[in-house]
Amino acid sequence: MKRYHLEVRVKPRPGLLDPQGRAIQHALDSLGFAGTEDIRVGKVIDLALMAGSPDAAVELGREMCRKLLANPVTEDFQVTLMNGARPVEGAE
Amino acid sequence: MKRYHLEVRVKPRPGLLDPQGRAIQHALDSLGFAGTEDIRVGKVIDLALMAGSPDAAVELGREMCRKLLANPVTEDFQVTLMNGARPVEGAE
Repeated sequence: MKRYHLEVRVKPRPGLLDPQGRAIQHALDSLGFAGTEDIRVGKVIDLALMAGSPDAAVELGREMCRKLLANPVTEDFQVTLMNGARPVEGAE
Repeated sequence: MKRYHLEVRVKPRPGLLDPQGRAIQHALDSLGFAGTEDIRVGKVIDLALMAGSPDAAVELGREMCRKLLANPVTEDFQVTLMNGARPVEGAE
């Protein structure tokens, strides 16, 4: 068992209304950042866990998304292993 | 001017208390995911904008963080250009 760091990104599905993204777009407009588009706001969750292998760590992260971190109806998620140079990813 | 896609990650500074991360850690424990650590919850913001170059796009994203998206006292941010194969990053 080794300690792995994961970065989990949970984002609203394309096509779904994202009111928070809308609000940010309006605020950016008022601040003079004209012409921003397609603003979507999600969560990014950093965590550390113990696992037997890099693949097992990513699979644990995906399981956490399915059970708790992401809403399966409205959100997509992506799990990235942060140890080492080559990222291991698992999206859904 | 070209259209660029940015991914902006805004995370609580290391050392600051993150109650949302704590709550997630307890919930994961109850679900049987024992031994998770250092859970920190931040925002991930996807957006599209027009800029003259990749570097200018990233700099615009950083400026948006400084003016609106991140709290300069409690949060760090990282801007990643999503066009093309090689990501251009700008963190703070």
